[in-house]
Amino acid sequence: MYDTLIIGAGVTGYGAAMYAGRLGLKALLVGELPGGTITMTDRVENYPGFSKLTGQELADNLRKHAEDYKEFIDFRDDRVASLERKDNHFIAEIGKEKIEAKTVIFATGTKWRELRVPGHDEFKNKGVHYCALCDGFFYRNKDVAIVGGSDSAAKDALVLAEHAKKVYIIYRKEKIRPEPPNMKRIEKNGKIEIINNANVLEIKGDKSGVTSVMLDRDFNGSKELRLDGLFIAIGHIALSELAKSIGVELNEKGEIKINRKSETNIPGFFAAGDVVDTHFKQAITGVAEGVLAAYGAYEYVKNNEG
Amino acid sequence: MYDTLIIGAGVTGYGAAMYAGRLGLKALLVGELPGGTITMTDRVENYPGFSKLTGQELADNLRKHAEDYKEFIDFRDDRVASLERKDNHFIAEIGKEKIEAKTVIFATGTKWRELRVPGHDEFKNKGVHYCALCDGFFYRNKDVAIVGGSDSAAKDALVLAEHAKKVYIIYRKEKIRPEPPNMKRIEKNGKIEIINNANVLEIKGDKSGVTSVMLDRDFNGSKELRLDGLFIAIGHIALSELAKSIGVELNEKGEIKINRKSETNIPGFFAAGDVVDTHFKQAITGVAEGVLAAYGAYEYVKNNEG
Repeated sequence: MYDTLIIGAGVTGYGAAMYAGRLGLKALLVGELPGGTITMTDRVENYPGFSKLTGQELADNLRKHAEDYKEFIDFRDDRVASLERKDNHFIAEIGKEKIEAKTVIFATGTKWRELRVPGHDEFKNKGVHYCALCDGFFYRNKDVAIVGGSDSAAKDALVLAEHAKKVYIIYRKEKIRPEPPNMKRIEKNGKIEIINNANVLEIKGDKSGVTSVMLDRDFNGSKELRLDGLFIAIGHIALSELAKSIGVELNEKGEIKINRKSETNIPGFFAAGDVVDTHFKQAITGVAEGVLAAYGAYEYVKNNEG
Repeated sequence: MYDTLIIGAGVTGYGAAMYAGRLGLKALLVGELPGGTITMTDRVENYPGFSKLTGQELADNLRKHAEDYKEFIDFRDDRVASLERKDNHFIAEIGKEKIEAKTVIFATGTKWRELRVPGHDEFKNKGVHYCALCDGFFYRNKDVAIVGGSDSAAKDALVLAEHAKKVYIIYRKEKIRPEPPNMKRIEKNGKIEIINNANVLEIKGDKSGVTSVMLDRDFNGSKELRLDGLFIAIGHIALSELAKSIGVELNEKGEIKINRKSETNIPGFFAAGDVVDTHFKQAITGVAEGVLAAYGAYEYVKNNEG
């Protein structure tokens, strides 16, 4: 019986694990993607204390920090197939095993929101991609576009511009909304061009992959935009299904509702990071929520002893 | 007119300043103690991402990070003498100047709670001290005591044991409650001895400084404990007076009440860090609150433009 089961191996899970270990909780950290989605970002400039590093480096720092307490923490690269709540504890199915824990710290994060248009499924991973950092390199000297207007989309455009000949940002509204330093970088980058007030209606291609997209407005005299690759950054969906399956309360976006102690509606079940209902989700806020969750788990275990 | 006035130059203020700068807010950061109280800690092992560093190093990292955005941020080592709210903005008196700002991020932290017993005022800084890291060195091969049972008290005892011959921990309850790694260090340290269930009733001394304290129970056959120095770590008091002066709501401990957006009851007035009502105050949680405050200030300024 573990004191706490941490689900999710992103920076939030690592932060929670480090504090859990410091507080002497016997913890299991399980996650499918070591380091989490931040490892798909090449430029992290806003985790206070580190002026600039890659997402992989930040995740490695936090993992290494958690490993200082490996006397207390078991790490498993795996997924939790199902979760149940029984009496006063939780049971997780991991591979062929059933793991029991007194508390859960749920930090599964998000997955990418898909662009549901004709051609998407046919060309996914054949010209349609979600990770600029992973797949941008394949578009050396080619023409690509990124769909989206967030800071993530802007950072992806900058990554793509390191490889591609031309990078379009296709955004449905009037003005993209990256953080100002990234906006400046985009304005100064001669390869990047913004197509605003435009939606992608269809993705077209042939056996070699994507060849163009159809827009809902004219651009340079045509609704068809020739492309070799299409990257998508239109947001995320909280990976909250497992939590929902045991009755954890979600908001209308499917995010887990927590309070300032990272508590959910279920005693002993804490949540933190991108999967929760924080309005401004950053690595630093997720990690802090993970730390508060670890402290909550510690208090919960202590108060329910004996 | 600044977009935001950040009051407090601890890690929380620096984290807020860095994000404010990234978000393009014109910010002034004012604080009396550059780096804040964490600079009085020699061992920080729980800021996720840094396995171990001194409090001064952590503060320096965060300050340096904020300085990346000095195009937007002015730094002043000074104190705010008074604060008022006028129309839709704030006016701060700093030295002989009056500074105006659209928003405030209040991160003043705490001061030490004093041990109000006879002899305290007479021997303060003459044997009675609050900063083990600052003043421990003066007690090389001497006998000292630290009053308190928190993790801070325990860390102070460890610092003192590097210099002193003998370190007593005087704690009013049954069992001190440091984080487990620090508890282990104390148990292994041959110089440290815990006197539990004891209160200091009086501090005695002569012209050379402290010579003993009177306890409310016998220890080694006497209520008088011979000492060369007495260190005190019995908690903190939130430095919330300035905020209170303009009507910011406090809890019964004098801490500023905030919500998950670091908002207070006064529009445009945000608070973060040790001065607020977070139940588990850590460097990481303070910094995250500072980041949320900066984002809140950004949204507030944007929504009240034009």
